[in-house]
Amino acid sequence: MDLLKQRILKDGLEAGSGVIKADSFLNHQLDIGLFMALGKEIHRRFGHLNINKILTIESSGIGIAAITAIYFDLVSVVFAKKMQPNTMTEAFYSAPVKSFTKGTVSMAMVAKQYLTSQDRVLIIDDFMAHGEAAMGLTSLVEQAGGTVCGIAAIIEKEFQGGSKKLRDAGYLVDSLAVVSKIENGQIYFKD
Amino acid sequence: MDLLKQRILKDGLEAGSGVIKADSFLNHQLDIGLFMALGKEIHRRFGHLNINKILTIESSGIGIAAITAIYFDLVSVVFAKKMQPNTMTEAFYSAPVKSFTKGTVSMAMVAKQYLTSQDRVLIIDDFMAHGEAAMGLTSLVEQAGGTVCGIAAIIEKEFQGGSKKLRDAGYLVDSLAVVSKIENGQIYFKD
Repeated sequence: MDLLKQRILKDGLEAGSGVIKADSFLNHQLDIGLFMALGKEIHRRFGHLNINKILTIESSGIGIAAITAIYFDLVSVVFAKKMQPNTMTEAFYSAPVKSFTKGTVSMAMVAKQYLTSQDRVLIIDDFMAHGEAAMGLTSLVEQAGGTVCGIAAIIEKEFQGGSKKLRDAGYLVDSLAVVSKIENGQIYFKD
Repeated sequence: MDLLKQRILKDGLEAGSGVIKADSFLNHQLDIGLFMALGKEIHRRFGHLNINKILTIESSGIGIAAITAIYFDLVSVVFAKKMQPNTMTEAFYSAPVKSFTKGTVSMAMVAKQYLTSQDRVLIIDDFMAHGEAAMGLTSLVEQAGGTVCGIAAIIEKEFQGGSKKLRDAGYLVDSLAVVSKIENGQIYFKD
């Protein structure tokens, strides 16, 4: 998606080895006009799959998931939580998720009542690197007996292998911007 | 706002002393149709204040802030982060925020480049109890020299004193549903 690629080239400064910085438009400050374009594009790519629910993980997937849901005319977005607040007293599905950026492992959790065997789910991942978050979310859907219809990543760093791992596991993955390599401070896109 | 009050009465089961449960529509599963109605109502109440930025805090404020921004025709939503990821290397504003629900104190942080002295900010708080999150966010705006134009809470538990504390400090607070008391498992609204 050209609009997104241009934005990454303009504002996605590298802040260390292999880390693209999308804080100015995607995961700290949110460019809502861009989000609307992203949501519309995600619907164009996944809208034929009879999806009834969007699943993401806190925090930075939530904004794009909420706006994308408008284009799918969906009632339900669910975001997996990374810890158990004491208001979540009922049973929940959980899966471990490793964050390479933060160097931590957390549990992704969704209360059982919000994922069912009837659900046809689109997973939205704002930043796919090793694919750990998306893989954890597929596990939650499948624990509930639901169907993962597809995984939409906003920015994918292909060279870190996440999308390959997910496709090898049988999932449909489609990313709006695919970074093939970062070399000498230059970002290169696939195609 | 009647639509929201009805939803709280229908689905806002008390999950302990004083804790309203909004997991099914506000802060775990998100009812996007409801969010659009809430965003429109927030714009009706705050739309005349020449606001150029919405500020909230991760995680559960993000979805409603993103959708509300559409009604304000805003480019920028910023959410304060509760910890410092290693990609946030530049300077940031910070303020302590106590969570009575989780029993923790965390730092709310916004990178300095995303709040400026030019900003006229609407703060969105999904769930106002003691007002700690909103108070922390006002501090971030003021550290940047910006203006807090107003604070929109979605659900306010008036009996926990947050809105009084914020109004005493001079802020405009307007909540979409104000819970005056919870007694014998019954939720009572102001008015």
